[in-house]
Amino acid sequence: MDNIKQYVQDNKERFINELIELLKISSVSADTAYAHDVLATAEAVKNSLQNAGCHKVEICETPGYPIVYGEHIIDSNLPTVLVYGHYDVQPPDPIDLWTSPPFEPVIKPTEIHPEGAIFARGACDDKGQMYMHVKAFEYMIKNNCLPCNVKFMIEGEEEVGSSSLSWFVQHNQQKLANDVILISDTGMISNQQPSITTGLRGLSYVEVEVTGPNRDLHSGLYGGAVANPINILCQMIASLHDEDNKINIPGFYDKVEELTEQERAEMAKAPFSLDNYKKALDINDVYGEKGYVTNERNSIRPTLDVNGIWGGYTGEGAKTVIASKAYAKISMRLVPNQDWEEITELFTKHFESIAPPAVKVKVTPHHGGQGYVTPIDSIGYQAANKAYTETFGVPAIPVRSGGSIPIVALFEKELKSKTILMGFGLDSDAIHSPNEHYGVFNYLKGIETIPLFYKYFVEMSK
Amino acid sequence: MDNIKQYVQDNKERFINELIELLKISSVSADTAYAHDVLATAEAVKNSLQNAGCHKVEICETPGYPIVYGEHIIDSNLPTVLVYGHYDVQPPDPIDLWTSPPFEPVIKPTEIHPEGAIFARGACDDKGQMYMHVKAFEYMIKNNCLPCNVKFMIEGEEEVGSSSLSWFVQHNQQKLANDVILISDTGMISNQQPSITTGLRGLSYVEVEVTGPNRDLHSGLYGGAVANPINILCQMIASLHDEDNKINIPGFYDKVEELTEQERAEMAKAPFSLDNYKKALDINDVYGEKGYVTNERNSIRPTLDVNGIWGGYTGEGAKTVIASKAYAKISMRLVPNQDWEEITELFTKHFESIAPPAVKVKVTPHHGGQGYVTPIDSIGYQAANKAYTETFGVPAIPVRSGGSIPIVALFEKELKSKTILMGFGLDSDAIHSPNEHYGVFNYLKGIETIPLFYKYFVEMSK
Repeated sequence: MDNIKQYVQDNKERFINELIELLKISSVSADTAYAHDVLATAEAVKNSLQNAGCHKVEICETPGYPIVYGEHIIDSNLPTVLVYGHYDVQPPDPIDLWTSPPFEPVIKPTEIHPEGAIFARGACDDKGQMYMHVKAFEYMIKNNCLPCNVKFMIEGEEEVGSSSLSWFVQHNQQKLANDVILISDTGMISNQQPSITTGLRGLSYVEVEVTGPNRDLHSGLYGGAVANPINILCQMIASLHDEDNKINIPGFYDKVEELTEQERAEMAKAPFSLDNYKKALDINDVYGEKGYVTNERNSIRPTLDVNGIWGGYTGEGAKTVIASKAYAKISMRLVPNQDWEEITELFTKHFESIAPPAVKVKVTPHHGGQGYVTPIDSIGYQAANKAYTETFGVPAIPVRSGGSIPIVALFEKELKSKTILMGFGLDSDAIHSPNEHYGVFNYLKGIETIPLFYKYFVEMSK
Repeated sequence: MDNIKQYVQDNKERFINELIELLKISSVSADTAYAHDVLATAEAVKNSLQNAGCHKVEICETPGYPIVYGEHIIDSNLPTVLVYGHYDVQPPDPIDLWTSPPFEPVIKPTEIHPEGAIFARGACDDKGQMYMHVKAFEYMIKNNCLPCNVKFMIEGEEEVGSSSLSWFVQHNQQKLANDVILISDTGMISNQQPSITTGLRGLSYVEVEVTGPNRDLHSGLYGGAVANPINILCQMIASLHDEDNKINIPGFYDKVEELTEQERAEMAKAPFSLDNYKKALDINDVYGEKGYVTNERNSIRPTLDVNGIWGGYTGEGAKTVIASKAYAKISMRLVPNQDWEEITELFTKHFESIAPPAVKVKVTPHHGGQGYVTPIDSIGYQAANKAYTETFGVPAIPVRSGGSIPIVALFEKELKSKTILMGFGLDSDAIHSPNEHYGVFNYLKGIETIPLFYKYFVEMSK
């Protein structure tokens, strides 16, 4: 592995251009209008694995978008690493806030990325981070230093709940047998201070619909006399938090894992500047659950956020109407021990129960997933930490992330193996936002670090 | 005037076809995309007045959409009736709820209109009701029985606040001098029980914008740690009503005209079935201010309704995002003595004051207008009542309407004359809603009733 630095140096132009080609395909899984592009992306990923030298690559049909599966077995007695990633991306809207088109990648320098960052939807989440594994694999093949077996499982529905993946994993446990699962779909503290995500939040995502009168009404003739579904929806949503910003759903906190004072003290050691945080978001103040600091609110505590709301007249000018219906998309981030299906049920029951008789309410669960915690004393974690330490010069700090990769808990349940979250992104990469980008430094550093994980994982597994 | 019934009978096909042609032009004033059609409608109205025999017709330019002005002076010693109406219409959306295209008028029978109703945006509000006056005028000209002078003022911005009309009235007081103003832009109780609107509610319409972080954020990485502008907007809107559904804005009720028990008892005499009301709207219960019944809540009491709300991801599927901004359009219906500009200021001050420091709030006033009350002992009211009594066989009942025609108060202030609201629409006409329609019976009955108003008004004025 000693020539990996050199190999990345020699091929970096090609590595960047290959990723840019992949980013040009708008694989938005949430919107069926993009279906053709999602499938085209699966094809592109398949080809990239074949070109990298993977023995067996196939596109596996599922009830939804296909899963690209690759397999390179060199010796059944050696350990097997299963690499997971996703080739679908978030919707790009609001498009008008992008400084360059989301599917026309450009490299621009930023304060944090003086050597340039690739701007495009999916640059970091997850095409860029997924493709690092393809290129790291290419290196190990071309240089005859692949120390173990590898399997790739790249899905196309991560941004919409991975329902087909769950089906796929449950039906292919033999095929997917492995010793450790490796995923790069998270971030690290900074380009100077690597970190490994040891915890993820679970997720419950629902859509609610409040119906008042059977048709839109004139707000003058009916205003004040009938329930306005938008006003009612606002009242119902407002009531979901109490004055301490705790979530107001009976039973919601019953199973929440409470950290010890010592664990919280450990967390507090991670470098964090509230001033910079507020400046970066241009907010005068942070806002959240009483009794917890920002880094706890966004990681070890559950949340409830409205992700979208709509109803009535939203066009130009004024329309004096009382809408018949109002809608909202609501998601809850969950912490270890909270079961997402149970929480979804608690939410549904509660939300229906607080609706006044003057309206009808419908709650539709979208998707969800369980939270997850990785033990830092596992071989996988140790190997990853050693790899980071070698390429970054400092050991990685274990951190809890507020994000969710619902299938991680599923992998442990179905495949009985631990997942290592080797993320190379940064909070400032604006994933899920306009102007998502991924640092060229991070992309190349990832390609450089991954082979070292293989090396140390195999050594430590002996 | 004795042959008016016959004249309507002989010409009803033509009357209906002429209105249908007018309804085909999509004069939506709220959306600049329709600007060309709005102007085309003004032309059509001008031509219709000329064809009816009006001496002098002109299209008067304004800062916004033009006003069609017509004048027919037969003797300066005789009284002058100023007819007001509007040729613009509400936006048609949600389009998909229309059973036939909003600008392709069709005549269909309904339970209330067995002889058929004209379905189209603007059929009742206000093209249909405005055009009755053009045809009634045509009758009086063709039959040499016009008993006084007439002026027509038909505007194109009523649905967006009539700002140009205010300007026009203030700059043309001489030209618009009159003895009574006649408007058909309201409704009546039923086709068997005519009524005259004696009170209108005022209006204050604002748009609010709540800004949290400077960009959309990943709800996993930031959820729980920053203020979500949608959640905050919902809390702010919810707080605008208290548990008795009274409006929670300091000073809001200070000038509200409180009716006497006797006045309320009078109002209660108007025929009303709560069961039919609920059935017609398919609601299990009504909803409103504690201590008042439905017919009071929608007429003599002020209201606050959200007319539109939007923010975050509203597309297909799920997007785990915290939006940077959330918006709402909010309107307040006001009662006599509440000043709309003062209320707009009270709202703005209050709304800004309840915003938590973690967000920024912007309130933009759209438009507004004062409430109005017509004395039932005026000659105008008496003449209208006599006309209804003759054509419907029963006297009209005076009622307070919840709607707003902001310019009525302006007319009194600038032109010093009273307005008579001779409405022929029904609550069930679905104005401002999908499938707006206007009964053929109501349209023809209006044309038949209006000339009688002229006759009695001139007689009583002697």
